[in-house]
Amino acid sequence: MGEKPARESMAEALRVPSGKVDLSDYDPAATPTIEDSRKEGEKALAGMAEELLELQTRLFASKESTSPRQLLLVLQGMDTSGKGGVLKHTVGLMDPIGLKVTSFKAPSAEERAHDFLWRIEKAVPPAGFVGVFDRSHYEDVLIQRVRSFAPAQEIERRYGAINDFEKRLVDEGTVVLKCMLHISPEVQKERLQERLEDPTKHWKYNPGDLDERQLWAAYTEAYEIALERCNTDHAPWFIVPSDKKWFRNLAIAKLIEQTLTNLDLDWPVPEGLDLAAEKARLAADTITTESLT
Amino acid sequence: MGEKPARESMAEALRVPSGKVDLSDYDPAATPTIEDSRKEGEKALAGMAEELLELQTRLFASKESTSPRQLLLVLQGMDTSGKGGVLKHTVGLMDPIGLKVTSFKAPSAEERAHDFLWRIEKAVPPAGFVGVFDRSHYEDVLIQRVRSFAPAQEIERRYGAINDFEKRLVDEGTVVLKCMLHISPEVQKERLQERLEDPTKHWKYNPGDLDERQLWAAYTEAYEIALERCNTDHAPWFIVPSDKKWFRNLAIAKLIEQTLTNLDLDWPVPEGLDLAAEKARLAADTITTESLT
Repeated sequence: MGEKPARESMAEALRVPSGKVDLSDYDPAATPTIEDSRKEGEKALAGMAEELLELQTRLFASKESTSPRQLLLVLQGMDTSGKGGVLKHTVGLMDPIGLKVTSFKAPSAEERAHDFLWRIEKAVPPAGFVGVFDRSHYEDVLIQRVRSFAPAQEIERRYGAINDFEKRLVDEGTVVLKCMLHISPEVQKERLQERLEDPTKHWKYNPGDLDERQLWAAYTEAYEIALERCNTDHAPWFIVPSDKKWFRNLAIAKLIEQTLTNLDLDWPVPEGLDLAAEKARLAADTITTESLT
Repeated sequence: MGEKPARESMAEALRVPSGKVDLSDYDPAATPTIEDSRKEGEKALAGMAEELLELQTRLFASKESTSPRQLLLVLQGMDTSGKGGVLKHTVGLMDPIGLKVTSFKAPSAEERAHDFLWRIEKAVPPAGFVGVFDRSHYEDVLIQRVRSFAPAQEIERRYGAINDFEKRLVDEGTVVLKCMLHISPEVQKERLQERLEDPTKHWKYNPGDLDERQLWAAYTEAYEIALERCNTDHAPWFIVPSDKKWFRNLAIAKLIEQTLTNLDLDWPVPEGLDLAAEKARLAADTITTESLT
């Protein structure tokens, strides 16, 4: 993916075109639509805090309207691609009262005893919320495919089931924003080394990550298939170049901003609220600290 | 509550002494231990962001140790006392990956069909998390007492049940930090008026709030009883003067900071992790972008 003209939106720049996906066409170090400057990029992200918060508050307020809306941000990517970084630096700009973040780990015995979407369903954002999936139902066609944790025929079934599931969310008022955090194996190696060198990061180091790394080619193929087969009009995929942390954080902030802006949400007035009557009632109220003692 | 000497900690200043509680002894506009300046107060809060984040990360990392810890922040207070403001301005300084926020509304039919602590239990913070209750199990001895939603004998039973429940959380590694956001009826009136005047706040206005306001004296009594009977050594109450928003937000940040600092958490090394072996394995790794194509 080459340099893009500046006035193209982030969503246009990162949207995966329909059809076959070849991840080697996508440069993980690219910074499309943005000047390549970490300092400027971090400043730009900080400058978006106020607007993101207002957009999120409008979304949250929509729960009091007759047509509540939700945003579901799906974060997928290889280990160290920065799902946690996006949570801290981008999602962290929003108000926790309207966030529902779920970090999906290996499924429990109870979860494995149900359809793969059973635990996902419980984590979708309620009315007005921003839901964030740190890993997601895509694990069920990624690690599960690469590691053959499920039979080929069952994996095959899941692509369609995912598309139907996401369609239902969208039909019911949720915008689904799916981001693949794309990194190079070189950058993953650096980040794993950092975790091993820095005592404040040892707790994040999982020897299993290095085992998964050996399967890089198989994961690439599994991602390419998922990015092709679940790249729908109702829930498109975005590939976010993530070798540069500042770009990754800023790009996702811009995707969220653009998505929420497009919803064009008004401030709702709760049904049946009589503002004049309430103002009169409150004006007539005589309760004071003195009156109570 | 008068002026306190500056070197007294926020926890010492706001801790409710054991015994009978008379809320009229507590000035909701006080700013103990802090110079009364909104501008300085807001700056001080912003200046705490980095430290709070590190303390929270240490807590989160403890989930990888053999003795994980948790923090449960309970926010109680009359309508408009600023539970939402604390979430946005204070809790919002932390990383959403380790936050579990629950806003308790009127219980559903299914919740009412269980013991009052059933829904609370499901919302406690898992290993390493900061849990935040926006309203809590105290509603079951506050509105439920004032409105006689439960028989007197059942309300009576609940104080002991709450103390036992909180003791179990503490014994299992959770610090319980209970904050009563204390406002005056005058300030509540102003804030309700604001909601009615400002179209961006209409969605927050609930006519029921004005009905509850008529019961201010009864609520005060119910709070005094709860603050006395559930003010235990393992889970003490703090009264946070909340007429001034900046003080409320800063005071709770300081309570969190002090609480997490007292835990004195080291960065854990996951059990069985052999750093030298992992470094050697990673150094020998030859996967690169080139090797994959």
